[in-house]
Amino acid sequence: MFHNIKLEQGETAYGQIYSYIKEMIENGMLPGGSKLPSTREMATIMKVSRNTIIKVYEMLEDSFLVYTEKGKGTFVSKVDINKNKEWHINWSEKINEFGKKAEALDIMKHEQLYKRGMISFRSIAPDESLFDVEELKRAFLNRVALEGEKILNYGYARGYKYLIEYLMKYMEEKGVNTKNKEILITNGFTEGFDIVLSSLTSKGDKILCENPTHNTAIKLMRLYGLDIIGLDINENGIDLDSLDKKLNDDIKLAYIIPSYHNPTGMVMPFEGREKLYNKLKEHKVPIVEDGFNEELQYLGTHIAPLAAISGEENSVIYIGSLSKILFPGMRIGWIFADKELIDIFESVKRSKNIHTSFLDQAILYEYMNSGSFEKYVKKVRNIYKEKYELAKSLSEAYIPNEYVLGNGGLHIFVKLKDVDARVLLDRCLKRGVIFTPGDIFYTDGGGKNTLRIGFSRNSLEEIKEGIKIIGEEAYLIRGR
Amino acid sequence: MFHNIKLEQGETAYGQIYSYIKEMIENGMLPGGSKLPSTREMATIMKVSRNTIIKVYEMLEDSFLVYTEKGKGTFVSKVDINKNKEWHINWSEKINEFGKKAEALDIMKHEQLYKRGMISFRSIAPDESLFDVEELKRAFLNRVALEGEKILNYGYARGYKYLIEYLMKYMEEKGVNTKNKEILITNGFTEGFDIVLSSLTSKGDKILCENPTHNTAIKLMRLYGLDIIGLDINENGIDLDSLDKKLNDDIKLAYIIPSYHNPTGMVMPFEGREKLYNKLKEHKVPIVEDGFNEELQYLGTHIAPLAAISGEENSVIYIGSLSKILFPGMRIGWIFADKELIDIFESVKRSKNIHTSFLDQAILYEYMNSGSFEKYVKKVRNIYKEKYELAKSLSEAYIPNEYVLGNGGLHIFVKLKDVDARVLLDRCLKRGVIFTPGDIFYTDGGGKNTLRIGFSRNSLEEIKEGIKIIGEEAYLIRGR
Repeated sequence: MFHNIKLEQGETAYGQIYSYIKEMIENGMLPGGSKLPSTREMATIMKVSRNTIIKVYEMLEDSFLVYTEKGKGTFVSKVDINKNKEWHINWSEKINEFGKKAEALDIMKHEQLYKRGMISFRSIAPDESLFDVEELKRAFLNRVALEGEKILNYGYARGYKYLIEYLMKYMEEKGVNTKNKEILITNGFTEGFDIVLSSLTSKGDKILCENPTHNTAIKLMRLYGLDIIGLDINENGIDLDSLDKKLNDDIKLAYIIPSYHNPTGMVMPFEGREKLYNKLKEHKVPIVEDGFNEELQYLGTHIAPLAAISGEENSVIYIGSLSKILFPGMRIGWIFADKELIDIFESVKRSKNIHTSFLDQAILYEYMNSGSFEKYVKKVRNIYKEKYELAKSLSEAYIPNEYVLGNGGLHIFVKLKDVDARVLLDRCLKRGVIFTPGDIFYTDGGGKNTLRIGFSRNSLEEIKEGIKIIGEEAYLIRGR
Repeated sequence: MFHNIKLEQGETAYGQIYSYIKEMIENGMLPGGSKLPSTREMATIMKVSRNTIIKVYEMLEDSFLVYTEKGKGTFVSKVDINKNKEWHINWSEKINEFGKKAEALDIMKHEQLYKRGMISFRSIAPDESLFDVEELKRAFLNRVALEGEKILNYGYARGYKYLIEYLMKYMEEKGVNTKNKEILITNGFTEGFDIVLSSLTSKGDKILCENPTHNTAIKLMRLYGLDIIGLDINENGIDLDSLDKKLNDDIKLAYIIPSYHNPTGMVMPFEGREKLYNKLKEHKVPIVEDGFNEELQYLGTHIAPLAAISGEENSVIYIGSLSKILFPGMRIGWIFADKELIDIFESVKRSKNIHTSFLDQAILYEYMNSGSFEKYVKKVRNIYKEKYELAKSLSEAYIPNEYVLGNGGLHIFVKLKDVDARVLLDRCLKRGVIFTPGDIFYTDGGGKNTLRIGFSRNSLEEIKEGIKIIGEEAYLIRGR
């Protein structure tokens, strides 16, 4: 049955013998239940050491091809594990409405993809070349030295204690009253919003938001079957007349992004925030505040978040995330809200995925607490500011526009003059430039003439070249 | 207005001056809009360096207490941010059914908590003292050296490419046919199961599972409003008569844990797996296989998972996780299934939390690929085996039982003879010993006389002492 196979140079003996026996089993030459020679016998047959054969048998066993019976020997498995092939499930028939909607609303699958060499204004992720990896390494090594294997075992749904305490102070520094409030750590903003909607809303509930708004939030609101009521936006932010008309006591929640609003890049001034808060309060509409990019407020003075304006009231569910400036790959965010509400959210979080990575939470805590985060933010503010100023002034100068919005941050928003942004995108794509068409941010199918330019990961040269191309193509379309 | 405050020893000057001004603002002594002295003037008043005052003003600004107008000076914020306090939302009225159920089903909140000094058999988490932290450090440093900041930025919903490739091979090594199959990385088993249920099931759908079964799975099935059909279990595993009676073509999914079944610890033999698969196939019931602890199969030979038995068929959704043996704090698992199905699951995953931590995925890949994982598993198998054998034999000897189940792994399952496990737990608690009452694993309110003993994190001495106490108390109850 077995014979001395010719071993090739450059490959291990055990690898070749393993493949040889594996093939014999799979071809049925060694039927299930048949006994293999002992390792000693096989070593003699194959003219290799017994250790080599022991390793081969172990590999065969690990692959379920053979099994060992103590004191009896090694046998070929009875499993003809590749036999089954008649049953084919048509899974697409079995996907429910939620699954189908998630796929249909998954923009990542339906948009042009970045190719190497393109100038892409699609991303509003941070520029990773600004990350201080050395500081991160230090944070990792320090935390592991302090806590060792403990942070590698199960943690708590609520989150890593030190990180929660740190973020509580961080909220206080934003002017927020933390009395009767607590924090739950989440896998980024997205999970935070998912937890809030899945715990508080039911199909058909009305939810108020800016129109346009963050498209991941739109996706989740649609997935939960909510009735989205969009508030018009103009160059001064939320149109308060539009708000007055649409506000009523029947609205379940309002979702608001006060700072570096996505996609418009606008920062709502303090007076606007206060007015908005008071109007929502009048109608008892609780607020989900998206703390998105607050850290980047480099133009002028800090502005208190709605969570600060609410004072001792328990009306604001603040969702924080550092993903747009720091280590988004880690996926860490938090919900800050009324403590009874956090108690429920904690159970929902636990049911969905037990808890967020404790290793990541511990590293992030160490990194922030060491002062590295503050240093980092100071550094990147200036770099992003330069990019912002260039992108804004060039867009105003080169692109035929009704307005260019944005007060800083990592992106600006352009309303084109008589140009369809999708037509423009097709033409720019041919010249190697892509951006995000604004329509994906609209709750009502609007925004055909708008686009978002994310400049965080582009060099100043790319910003110049890319925006000029967008402008040229826009004028060519208008000229036709 | 300002005067030279008396600075205390042992506290920083800037901290004391900051607190002093903060208090004046909060007490209304410095009204909103009023101008602060210039840093130079204030330094003179306070008799400290100008740098100290610059720092204080920065801190005040960071706390939103003051703002700076270029060329004009520093002003007290107009925000009286702690003013609001009339609006109190009764959140408990606003929680939806899902949120309420998640809280009610959250066992962690309703069970006795571990206190220092107790012998706890509650946990089936791995013993963290067995983790090789040095290897993990090496994996982290290697991966960061190779990929740098890239793994810290956004990744892909599908997962980290190298880890996926590694796990694909890993599945092949289990004897699984990977043709037309793909992998999605998830935050552990729990998220994997959540994604599967939320994409495939609708309220009222019938789902088949072992009774008892993994309580986190029961929680999710209940949260999704599924009609749970429990299959009886006896000392030989799933009772096939019970299966025959309950099987029909109307069942949406079957959820099965073939290896080290939670809570019974039983490993389903190959013949049982094959019979089960064929019966489910006859009724076209797709299978969610929980790959739980397969890696720990140290008793006898490996047994092919259902995913291997299915051959080329696309009927098994295999959910893998290493959490019960390796680094559960990282929360990494995977779904292996038909590629069209994975495509939908990918969109669902993206909508829920974008992706699983790329840093963790990269570290885990490096750790596994370096061979550290294999070495680790070999080491811990023997350690857990010793604990298992002790726990099993002592339970059989000391606890009045109808049977003691478990073929290895990290836990065993005891059916008490005429003793209520909750009554027993109350008594054991007083003697500093806790375990998991078995009723929480039952789909039908049964299991009153059962308990799970998780021994993974206990020393051999604790196992001896704890099980003797459980036995003594059980006999005392019977004797009354």
